[in-house]
Amino acid sequence: MNEKKAVGEKATEFVKDGMVVGLGTGSTMFYTLLKLGQLVKEGLSIQGIPTSIQTAELAKELNIPLAGFKEIEKIDLAIDGADEVDENLNLIKGGGGALLREKIIAKAANQFIVVADPSKMVKTLGSFPLPVEIVPFGAEMTEKHLRELGGSPALRRVNGEPFRTDNGHFILDCIFPSLAQPQELEVSLNKIPGVVENGLFIGMADVLITLNSDHQPILYRKK
Amino acid sequence: MNEKKAVGEKATEFVKDGMVVGLGTGSTMFYTLLKLGQLVKEGLSIQGIPTSIQTAELAKELNIPLAGFKEIEKIDLAIDGADEVDENLNLIKGGGGALLREKIIAKAANQFIVVADPSKMVKTLGSFPLPVEIVPFGAEMTEKHLRELGGSPALRRVNGEPFRTDNGHFILDCIFPSLAQPQELEVSLNKIPGVVENGLFIGMADVLITLNSDHQPILYRKK
Repeated sequence: MNEKKAVGEKATEFVKDGMVVGLGTGSTMFYTLLKLGQLVKEGLSIQGIPTSIQTAELAKELNIPLAGFKEIEKIDLAIDGADEVDENLNLIKGGGGALLREKIIAKAANQFIVVADPSKMVKTLGSFPLPVEIVPFGAEMTEKHLRELGGSPALRRVNGEPFRTDNGHFILDCIFPSLAQPQELEVSLNKIPGVVENGLFIGMADVLITLNSDHQPILYRKK
Repeated sequence: MNEKKAVGEKATEFVKDGMVVGLGTGSTMFYTLLKLGQLVKEGLSIQGIPTSIQTAELAKELNIPLAGFKEIEKIDLAIDGADEVDENLNLIKGGGGALLREKIIAKAANQFIVVADPSKMVKTLGSFPLPVEIVPFGAEMTEKHLRELGGSPALRRVNGEPFRTDNGHFILDCIFPSLAQPQELEVSLNKIPGVVENGLFIGMADVLITLNSDHQPILYRKK
């Protein structure tokens, strides 16, 4: 069976008529978007706020109406994937490079739903390298500060060139020996001047949708 | 007398042969740069790291050699102005729009010297609106979060258009009713996803150069 499809489609059950919906990015969200496109075709009326140019393009193809921040008062719901999810519904995101927009939309939303197939579930975050979005200016200094925090940063590249986010920034993928105290790490990361944002989403997810051992969708809510 | 000139020139006494020097931006730094240009002409050998395109251009005109982050191992000294300085040498910076680069360089420097004429000295920070650098994406949401922290943000504009920093970001100038606890405010600001950096420089300045009541340069060191 297609686990990403099962999880991604399940999330659309939270979407109600008239909602403003934050639309995440990634391979699980792909199925959420396909399903939303079908529901819109059948009469569902929503406005989507895409977290990436890639999602905006797919939504347009699927005729999901999109809105800008100027046109909306609030975001009712945001749905997005994750690279890792721990037992407390804390996340690492940013493997796709859209972490900043994803975090802005997740924070703005009244409810944040995470879709994650079982391969993303971990006991402690940190096997997946933490993406840290940085300004290109002084990148060498920012790298140095990350090393001082115990991280091993690697500049993300595409075809040999530094990867650029939709905001024009670089990404450093950082392995940390331990991510057992993600809250503290987040505060330290935020204090580094060249760091724009990091892929830790702590206490932000309200609902997690994954699969149980029978491969059936199962929901976990924030404690 | 020209107070900015007296203060700005005094700072050059900290600059020694062979140093890598972070070069700040603003009307007091202008005099530091003029004096450094003269000292370089007389044989002083330094490498400058400019905090802004404007400072880079002035340094080039004055034949002050410039280096990039890639070419240097460390920054020995950074000199910069401030919009407000309190009794604990905490600063508000960013009136000129270069706060992010200024903060990156100030943090990277072994010693950070602040030049400020007496009009910049305050008992408590906050009369000067705090500049907050934000990503353009989701600016409306970021403004909303700043209002939730008690701030009154105003988008900085030039000729009616949003001002863009050297990094392509916007600036929100924020009045806060009280800035008596700047450390806590800084942590809260850093937690907002769309905030790239803020103009609070807490515990960063090592030396302040200002004028005493006899209009003579006077130095204060971090306690």
